[in-house]
Amino acid sequence: MMNNVQQLQTPAMVIDRAVVQRNIHHLAEYAKKVGLKIRPHTKTHKSRQVAAMQLEADAIGLAVAKVGEAAIMSAVCDDLLLAYPPVDAARATQLAALADGRAVRSAIDSTQALEVAAAAARSAQTTIGLLVDLDVGLGRTGVQSPGEALALARAIDSTVGVQLDGILVYPGHVWDPADQQRPALTAVAALLEETLDLWRRDGLEAKIVSGGSTPTAYQSHWVPQYTEIRPGTYVYNDMNTVHGGYCELKDCAARIVCTVMSDAVPGQVVIDAGSKTLTSDRCISAPESGHGYVAEYPEAKITHLSEEHGQVDVTACDRKPAIGERLTVVPNHICPCVNLQDTVWWLRPDQPLEPMAIDARGKIT
Amino acid sequence: MMNNVQQLQTPAMVIDRAVVQRNIHHLAEYAKKVGLKIRPHTKTHKSRQVAAMQLEADAIGLAVAKVGEAAIMSAVCDDLLLAYPPVDAARATQLAALADGRAVRSAIDSTQALEVAAAAARSAQTTIGLLVDLDVGLGRTGVQSPGEALALARAIDSTVGVQLDGILVYPGHVWDPADQQRPALTAVAALLEETLDLWRRDGLEAKIVSGGSTPTAYQSHWVPQYTEIRPGTYVYNDMNTVHGGYCELKDCAARIVCTVMSDAVPGQVVIDAGSKTLTSDRCISAPESGHGYVAEYPEAKITHLSEEHGQVDVTACDRKPAIGERLTVVPNHICPCVNLQDTVWWLRPDQPLEPMAIDARGKIT
Repeated sequence: MMNNVQQLQTPAMVIDRAVVQRNIHHLAEYAKKVGLKIRPHTKTHKSRQVAAMQLEADAIGLAVAKVGEAAIMSAVCDDLLLAYPPVDAARATQLAALADGRAVRSAIDSTQALEVAAAAARSAQTTIGLLVDLDVGLGRTGVQSPGEALALARAIDSTVGVQLDGILVYPGHVWDPADQQRPALTAVAALLEETLDLWRRDGLEAKIVSGGSTPTAYQSHWVPQYTEIRPGTYVYNDMNTVHGGYCELKDCAARIVCTVMSDAVPGQVVIDAGSKTLTSDRCISAPESGHGYVAEYPEAKITHLSEEHGQVDVTACDRKPAIGERLTVVPNHICPCVNLQDTVWWLRPDQPLEPMAIDARGKIT
Repeated sequence: MMNNVQQLQTPAMVIDRAVVQRNIHHLAEYAKKVGLKIRPHTKTHKSRQVAAMQLEADAIGLAVAKVGEAAIMSAVCDDLLLAYPPVDAARATQLAALADGRAVRSAIDSTQALEVAAAAARSAQTTIGLLVDLDVGLGRTGVQSPGEALALARAIDSTVGVQLDGILVYPGHVWDPADQQRPALTAVAALLEETLDLWRRDGLEAKIVSGGSTPTAYQSHWVPQYTEIRPGTYVYNDMNTVHGGYCELKDCAARIVCTVMSDAVPGQVVIDAGSKTLTSDRCISAPESGHGYVAEYPEAKITHLSEEHGQVDVTACDRKPAIGERLTVVPNHICPCVNLQDTVWWLRPDQPLEPMAIDARGKIT
């Protein structure tokens, strides 16, 4: 690694700007080729600067998980989708205020959320666009059948303050290798088609059918009903996407620089990155792989995390890292790691590291 | 729950002040009875206000994990122990500056850390007190034998800029039920005695022998060599300390208030607290218990966390929580949860909730 990484106080997150640009443009090319729009999920980076890079690369808008994230992103984007139901009055009121002069939409799966959103929009004299959240297999949120989707769509369509804009799905259950996703995504397509058919017969239109996740992003053409996809992780990638086969290590843009602070225990070194830096998230496709990938010592394994300690088994390494040595770790799951940083550092060839604030960190509501 | 909890924007952490006071005083009474000093570890609360409450209850100083935490706590305490080796010049320089007018100590397990700390102290014209970190069974950091402890103590004793203040141990491997800890702690005592005997024969004194953890806190009398203990979690407690049998549910002071945002999937509700609120830390003694304890629905089980979603299996509950209903979750591991909050809320009878900043949140170096 170049630049002044050796002078960084650790642990710190560095982000390779060229890799981010490549990841953004690679997806933009795919989407253009198959006729899909991209609405990146900003929960991964929580950064206006990165959101602006995605928008410059033809993203049509942004997805957010929280109303607080929507407020932050409203400074760079006027087309926002809250992929989360605003079931309480406080959230809905904030969302309705953001809809003044912007396209603001939300996904819902209940009439309670519908009523709260509509009341807030009427009160603010704005319109919130609503997508019906349809469960396509993850079993987390979403109405459970095309019939339920129709019922909720009808309720939205007949409610003042909101408008029916379409359907949102999240195929977060699909972690098959990319070339084996066709059956699962074909099932998603069938469920969507059945739902859309019911809507059409009822005179209801779904101008947006929003899908996607990073693991399925490049297989989105198997769901021809999609008008847009909302991947988040693809912008940085992580060991989840590497082990799943959705990218290569060279596509992992965001890494934790840390320092070896102990080698007292034989066969082990300890780094200053623990669960308060790397999180306790295991790698979904390879839970036995440990708590991240040590770039300089591929044979090393991060076996255990305490809050501020990472224990690294180095028995398989040719040489043992020295106390004070800098190591670079690719996290298992980059999104919650970014959320632990106030500031990250842009890495560019032959330039000093440049800080970037995580604008939406701490926006928990 | 009283007060304006229903108006809180969720997810939010509320802390019952009476429970915190009781936890602090309960430990203080025990320590007084067995003749031990308490140096609470502030990594749990990262709050000057809570640290001040501990110091008012006769804590002799504070333990911190990071130099940044030491800097924050230096505003309320002039006796600080960094339970972490400052192996790089930046950390050591900050630590040496804090030692101006304060008792500042650090634990180390290498001559590299010794040299860095001593150089920084000489440069700042201050003195850093050093404790030899001795591994008593966790296998994380710490010299591996009484002989190694003696060698490092000698090196410290002969180095200008630092002074040899004693020994630090962390029995973090002891998760036995309280009444079954005696054998493990007797082994710790034997190792300490062997080490101290070597030091005495060499004319070296350990005026501080610092031990303790929350699981072993009330069994510290089995290690008569201890002069002080450094528990952190005891101030708030969590499901780790409940399932370990070290406290009861009523002793859990800090809880996450969240909102039910979906009930679309049969037998399940979804709360707005996911891994960005509760963390992915499993309960050490009861990993199958799920991702926290839902106070209002003891039969519920938080089966899966996404970043902002908690899926709660309610099939065993008599009634199902409604969309919009507030639930209160006791986290598995409170320390990293506090670290995700910018502000938490003091809960007191018949008073409005009062915000408290997490002063040392984000102090990662």
